[in-house]
Amino acid sequence: MLFYQLFEPQSSTYTYLIADLKTKEAAIIDPVWETVDRDLKLISELGLYLMYILETHIHADHITGASEIRKNTMARTAVSALAEIDCADILLVDGQVLELGEKRIKAISTPGHTNACMSFLFEGMLFTGDSLLIRGTGRTDFQEGSASKLYESITQKLFTLPDDIQVYPAHDYHGISSTTIALEKELNPRIGKNRSKEDFQKIMDELQLAVPKKMHIALPANNVCGKSEVVKSMIESNLLGYKFTSSMAGGR
Amino acid sequence: MLFYQLFEPQSSTYTYLIADLKTKEAAIIDPVWETVDRDLKLISELGLYLMYILETHIHADHITGASEIRKNTMARTAVSALAEIDCADILLVDGQVLELGEKRIKAISTPGHTNACMSFLFEGMLFTGDSLLIRGTGRTDFQEGSASKLYESITQKLFTLPDDIQVYPAHDYHGISSTTIALEKELNPRIGKNRSKEDFQKIMDELQLAVPKKMHIALPANNVCGKSEVVKSMIESNLLGYKFTSSMAGGR
Repeated sequence: MLFYQLFEPQSSTYTYLIADLKTKEAAIIDPVWETVDRDLKLISELGLYLMYILETHIHADHITGASEIRKNTMARTAVSALAEIDCADILLVDGQVLELGEKRIKAISTPGHTNACMSFLFEGMLFTGDSLLIRGTGRTDFQEGSASKLYESITQKLFTLPDDIQVYPAHDYHGISSTTIALEKELNPRIGKNRSKEDFQKIMDELQLAVPKKMHIALPANNVCGKSEVVKSMIESNLLGYKFTSSMAGGR
Repeated sequence: MLFYQLFEPQSSTYTYLIADLKTKEAAIIDPVWETVDRDLKLISELGLYLMYILETHIHADHITGASEIRKNTMARTAVSALAEIDCADILLVDGQVLELGEKRIKAISTPGHTNACMSFLFEGMLFTGDSLLIRGTGRTDFQEGSASKLYESITQKLFTLPDDIQVYPAHDYHGISSTTIALEKELNPRIGKNRSKEDFQKIMDELQLAVPKKMHIALPANNVCGKSEVVKSMIESNLLGYKFTSSMAGGR
């Protein structure tokens, strides 16, 4: 089994590259537009055959690298059917299994941060997107967010997995790379220690978070899977407000 | 076995926390001043007994968190005897083994980036500091740096380890978290593919890198193991030029 955790610093996003080392078949989870070149280079260096580009959800804080990676690898994109987008090759349903060489990836529907959130289970590792974070959870105040649903997803679907499952979220803002089911059940200040749903909803209601800076461009871009033409037209209109590398603005 | 990779974004430094899960005895490698609070909290949350604070070398790009962590845990600090500093509890020599619960950490002297560089081998993982980086190497143009010595260290001591050893460096500037001996032997543009020592020396001679921004404060601070009084007086003199959290400036 091959596993890489990759980091994009502007949005503090973790991208994951996983593979069956025997067959070299691979999947990438939550690639980011800005780091597509790095990811493609790594996939090529490792001699991997990229089979899937998995999105844990439609991101509001960064633009997906899915379309660019798909174009350069012929991997298939996969996202929850509940996302109601028509650009993905595979529309995932709860419990769906994707074969990756001789191994399997299981998609687990974990609505709450968004309605279309999926977590992915692979070889003792759980990729939780923005559902369960390290000592935190995704927010639930937009994109059909629901604290009630997120509570059910985490407590009924994730916390019922084995304690020693390694949890890899889509973000961490403190430089911590992973956690476990046991640790979050014990230490998560929002939802650990058997907190009640009412407690959790109150905590989430009172968060008062600012809207993500890039939401106005990330959502439309991600609703078309980060399609190059759309993102490039955003770059040309200077809508993104942050610097792209020359290869991104011009090349691909 | 427990393993955490931790990231400090200002200097792109990776700190590592390793432990024998059975006895809960732990070691931290290359802690950073700015992230001491995070690290102490994590050690406490995980219920670990911190036995060692290991430095791969005297860093020029950031201030070590060693003294602050030592003060709060009673762990012993360890650094190469060749560093010629008198603040560390253990002065390591090449090949020295430290017991960590029922497991062992082996210190491997890998001079070149600095004369006192150590790599640490633990349970199939190699912590290479600034000696071997992901598709790169540490620079060799100050702190007794020597391209010739670094070439010998990497090719004779690290590349002779098993191919599947996972390599964890002190830095990566592209958001990649690890590599392997096999990958670096094959792909490292400076020293892979059986490059000659002359080739490597030429590459290193021609790098023309700027001096690290914080070197003037990092080296004096690190030569006293990041002793609080010294770092705090730097903060008060506004020598550091970057923001500390209030708990760092005031509390500890």
